[in-house]
Amino acid sequence: MTRTTNGQPLRVGVFGATGYTAREAIDILLRHPAFEVACVTSRREDRPALGEVHPSLAGRSGLVVEALDAREVAQRCDAALCCLPHAASAAAVRELVDGGVRVVDLSADFRLRNLPTYERWYDTTHPAPGLLEGAAYGMPEFFAGAIREAAVVANPGCYPTSALLALRPLAVDGLLDPDATVIVDAKSGVTGAGRSASDATHFPETNENFKAYKVGAHRHQPEIRQGLSKTLGDDGPAVLFTPHLVPMNRGILATCYATLRAPMSQDDLLARLASAHEANPFVRIGERLPETKHVAGTNYADISARVEGRTAIVICAIDNLLKGASGTAVQNLNIMFGLDEATALR
Amino acid sequence: MTRTTNGQPLRVGVFGATGYTAREAIDILLRHPAFEVACVTSRREDRPALGEVHPSLAGRSGLVVEALDAREVAQRCDAALCCLPHAASAAAVRELVDGGVRVVDLSADFRLRNLPTYERWYDTTHPAPGLLEGAAYGMPEFFAGAIREAAVVANPGCYPTSALLALRPLAVDGLLDPDATVIVDAKSGVTGAGRSASDATHFPETNENFKAYKVGAHRHQPEIRQGLSKTLGDDGPAVLFTPHLVPMNRGILATCYATLRAPMSQDDLLARLASAHEANPFVRIGERLPETKHVAGTNYADISARVEGRTAIVICAIDNLLKGASGTAVQNLNIMFGLDEATALR
Amino acid sequence: MTRTTNGQPLRVGVFGATGYTAREAIDILLRHPAFEVACVTSRREDRPALGEVHPSLAGRSGLVVEALDAREVAQRCDAALCCLPHAASAAAVRELVDGGVRVVDLSADFRLRNLPTYERWYDTTHPAPGLLEGAAYGMPEFFAGAIREAAVVANPGCYPTSALLALRPLAVDGLLDPDATVIVDAKSGVTGAGRSASDATHFPETNENFKAYKVGAHRHQPEIRQGLSKTLGDDGPAVLFTPHLVPMNRGILATCYATLRAPMSQDDLLARLASAHEANPFVRIGERLPETKHVAGTNYADISARVEGRTAIVICAIDNLLKGASGTAVQNLNIMFGLDEATALR
Amino acid sequence: MTRTTNGQPLRVGVFGATGYTAREAIDILLRHPAFEVACVTSRREDRPALGEVHPSLAGRSGLVVEALDAREVAQRCDAALCCLPHAASAAAVRELVDGGVRVVDLSADFRLRNLPTYERWYDTTHPAPGLLEGAAYGMPEFFAGAIREAAVVANPGCYPTSALLALRPLAVDGLLDPDATVIVDAKSGVTGAGRSASDATHFPETNENFKAYKVGAHRHQPEIRQGLSKTLGDDGPAVLFTPHLVPMNRGILATCYATLRAPMSQDDLLARLASAHEANPFVRIGERLPETKHVAGTNYADISARVEGRTAIVICAIDNLLKGASGTAVQNLNIMFGLDEATALR
Repeated sequence: MTRTTNGQPLRVGVFGATGYTAREAIDILLRHPAFEVACVTSRREDRPALGEVHPSLAGRSGLVVEALDAREVAQRCDAALCCLPHAASAAAVRELVDGGVRVVDLSADFRLRNLPTYERWYDTTHPAPGLLEGAAYGMPEFFAGAIREAAVVANPGCYPTSALLALRPLAVDGLLDPDATVIVDAKSGVTGAGRSASDATHFPETNENFKAYKVGAHRHQPEIRQGLSKTLGDDGPAVLFTPHLVPMNRGILATCYATLRAPMSQDDLLARLASAHEANPFVRIGERLPETKHVAGTNYADISARVEGRTAIVICAIDNLLKGASGTAVQNLNIMFGLDEATALR
Repeated sequence: MTRTTNGQPLRVGVFGATGYTAREAIDILLRHPAFEVACVTSRREDRPALGEVHPSLAGRSGLVVEALDAREVAQRCDAALCCLPHAASAAAVRELVDGGVRVVDLSADFRLRNLPTYERWYDTTHPAPGLLEGAAYGMPEFFAGAIREAAVVANPGCYPTSALLALRPLAVDGLLDPDATVIVDAKSGVTGAGRSASDATHFPETNENFKAYKVGAHRHQPEIRQGLSKTLGDDGPAVLFTPHLVPMNRGILATCYATLRAPMSQDDLLARLASAHEANPFVRIGERLPETKHVAGTNYADISARVEGRTAIVICAIDNLLKGASGTAVQNLNIMFGLDEATALR
Repeated sequence: MTRTTNGQPLRVGVFGATGYTAREAIDILLRHPAFEVACVTSRREDRPALGEVHPSLAGRSGLVVEALDAREVAQRCDAALCCLPHAASAAAVRELVDGGVRVVDLSADFRLRNLPTYERWYDTTHPAPGLLEGAAYGMPEFFAGAIREAAVVANPGCYPTSALLALRPLAVDGLLDPDATVIVDAKSGVTGAGRSASDATHFPETNENFKAYKVGAHRHQPEIRQGLSKTLGDDGPAVLFTPHLVPMNRGILATCYATLRAPMSQDDLLARLASAHEANPFVRIGERLPETKHVAGTNYADISARVEGRTAIVICAIDNLLKGASGTAVQNLNIMFGLDEATALR
Repeated sequence: MTRTTNGQPLRVGVFGATGYTAREAIDILLRHPAFEVACVTSRREDRPALGEVHPSLAGRSGLVVEALDAREVAQRCDAALCCLPHAASAAAVRELVDGGVRVVDLSADFRLRNLPTYERWYDTTHPAPGLLEGAAYGMPEFFAGAIREAAVVANPGCYPTSALLALRPLAVDGLLDPDATVIVDAKSGVTGAGRSASDATHFPETNENFKAYKVGAHRHQPEIRQGLSKTLGDDGPAVLFTPHLVPMNRGILATCYATLRAPMSQDDLLARLASAHEANPFVRIGERLPETKHVAGTNYADISARVEGRTAIVICAIDNLLKGASGTAVQNLNIMFGLDEATALR
């Protein structure tokens, strides 16, 4: 499967290169032994050097940001990371797939398998519904097999990553009361809002501030629900998702409250989680409560749990830009091309 | 009732003056038209000027911090604010009450009305159990009558203040399912941990970090439960309290999840809350989701709510040092001495 | 002089009410015993309630933000605070003065007394040059007499306030080497950039970041130079001003390096500063090095100094929104209307 | 020279493993292709797993922290990084050198080549003065030749690194006025204060605060002065060093003011700096003003400059824990063992 057999590195294109997730992905790919960044594109027309767009990357590459032309670029790439906005992304993905390029899509376009659910929550018509069924949901911890074969891998949302690493093992093992609402009270650093300035992310409005937003109305809610169903249908348990904004750059902490079908000790709960994640190199389970700083800058997810009565409190910390986006994206690329999934990620 | 009739300001002693809550209380009292700070004490023996201990207060008062001697100080005060650690506080309160001084106690010693509950959670013998029954629970929004008459007012904990302003009206009106666990997922700025340095509050460990702590094991959990019962017995609904540490100085946001006995619209829920808090000058109810920055530096509590299915999500923001501590303490003093409760607090 | 003799509060209009300096000014004026906020204006046409524009002020006033019409508003005000952008401000000030309103202008329009200097640095034609000569430079610490009489008071820039409180006493007393360049290395919190969102103030770009900007090219540089000359001509010593952005909301620390004409002890230097500021209620001189947190939320300026060889290092901390803007603006209003300059400012 | 010829990785011991610089060094060494971490020591006696002491490193190594015994450890190491406090470090270094181990010492013990200067500023007797003369000053940008041969390499202080990368090329080329005082106004994130909690680094005291400290009295001042002399005698120009504390975790920005011997354009100044650093892989010179966020998490130093009159303002940004400590330490190790100096550092 891997195309490194000829000794040449695999050529990866990064689309939508001006944002934070693209920067993180490029940072990893520039030190990856098997991939090379073949091109970076954006909608800017002035062709700035990569180091102008991302000064932290200055001196590490001679790349120039090109205008986006998926069809043309397809000829120069073996794989692509799409960091475009939803809808725009699916359109580009279609052209890339037509050109024989395998894609990890970081937008939301291929995450929700139920088309009406997607179109309702994202308030748009899907530009490439034909690719939906073949797309893999890109959580390497649960779907490595599908990822290995897929032409399109839908990289999960940052919040769903944190919630599903914590809860999916319990849900699919039937440990949760199917009639109870699962509460995901999650807190994210501000890079999760992307690189575009807005009133809500103006420094003095965010620093020394803490707030909830889009309570029960965030687009990651149906994705979490889908991820708690065995078959990724959206027939999972009711989910109430409350995101909050933390005055820090990076990190998500998800505090998840789920009702157990039957009482269970904390040790048993931790053992179940440890067993479910045994083969996953980036999931660390322990009694110590997770902190975002321990995973910042890494591809790790730290998980712990407590039990109070029939309520399981499972807490997961990730770096939203790495395990919650670009780290997982490269992990998916590694799997797609037959490499060790941890390559370049430690 | 008020002792300002002779035209003299009421003399207030502040005990345990080196911490953050004392600083905030002194800051308010120094601009209060009816009170004067008669003395400030600490366990330090070197008698530093107030402006040395709290440089932000330099130039505003000639006060010198005295060694603590409650019995002696009682002769120079009409009222006292006790900012001492629990147990130490109750001992001082007893001497002050014996000396005829009315006390607002900011420690936990008189908050829990059930002695065994107190002694179990605080792992100590209560030094003044005889004062417990007569003490008022100092939430002016609910117990102004008792506060007006009490010799000892137990200033509520910061987290319980935020949770109870949000939920108590619903609980006492019988709107909540009594069999369901109430979840209080609360987030606090770091001044809540007090002024003493520790590894956990070392800047690089806290900045750019977010974590939960003492999940289900924080001493404010029984206080919240008590406050959700009609009569402040500890027979309230089961409460699961998860505190988190936010990398900011001030503010608490409590995201509370409660199961409604019967479905209810968001508008009705907000109307109920608005009606319950109609007479409370510092509670602002609205559809806009609260943010801690809008209450920082003020005595306000901002509350909003959402309904998803039978789950009411009620969110409350306060400044942990003001509405969550010293602002409410002065509000209690105002009530105790027959003043407008808002005096010096806007 | 004061127009409070009829027992009516003085009516103050606040122009450009949506920014941070306006919010701080309104916050002070709403608790001022002699002023009332008569109107608040902005260029928004939708007439939002004040509490919508500034949620922290909700519940404190029934004011509605009006569209700006200086001529009309002049009839309802005794005084005005102009928080408009430069050039726009001078135009409004002219109409207000014509209507008999006394104005504290927080823009830069009346700060630089030399018209060509203003027009070169601000790259605009001055809309009201005729008012320039009569305008007072609004540093109460140095120009209270002129402020008392002036129709227009130019509220100083935030950086110049910090630098001039530190250095002007030394400059006008002839203690500085007139041939040496004065270096003002200043650091400001992000509210100094105003309330409008921009790439540079996007939270993730500013948090965990520190940088210099506009080195030698900031518009406050000529204002500092002017303020170091005896007569506020711009013939002061050469000044090199380097502003930096600090990841915090409020506060300026100016670290000023000036060459002494003759050697001087640290004690003598501090004594000189203390003597120069003896009558100023908001300047605190001491050996302790200033910290912005000790002045945050206050109208104080904290100053200390060190001497190394012939270099005097004078350090000044202020809250950029209060002593650096709205606190001083109200202090100026107090002086203009014959009140104690500290009214409502402690 | 390199001992990797037998195909075995070089064994590196890390002494004083519980601090931030050790954590960063271990993080790099664990992904270094030629080194392996042979042991980690501290003064703790309980032998915790590395992942307990540094949770961010959990899962990456089975190392256990051992009690410090330099003599014994010397038998198991080819090289050592000493992250011990000054004085304690020199004692350990002596034992390591006696045992044939080559050492990069991150303490201050071997930085100042003049013994009396060291003993005066550090107020201690030097425990190993005999090693002083042979020690190399570990700035790879200037002293790679000496580093390659040395038994002991003194890793520079974080502040001196930032100041000397900016100014040493100008000083040794004779561009600076030798009679003028060089001013280094530097600002550091809080990890620079180390991992031990203290009142000064308690989160609420540091967050939303900015201050200068140890003005003219910081121990890095003589090190900067020494580094500006051609031969690393302490006969360099007068230096005035003013450190400040920034409310962020990582990063130093040094704003350096130096008087040029003769006028010079900004372009010429930048060209001189670029030429001096031409061969240095981690120094980036450009017109864009440096920001600490662009170097955070990297081994880069970003430098720019401005000229005003005869004053050169040279600004340098580094990550204090990497280019300012552990990144440079590994760079020194690379050089000492004949590897590409950039190995594992990008």
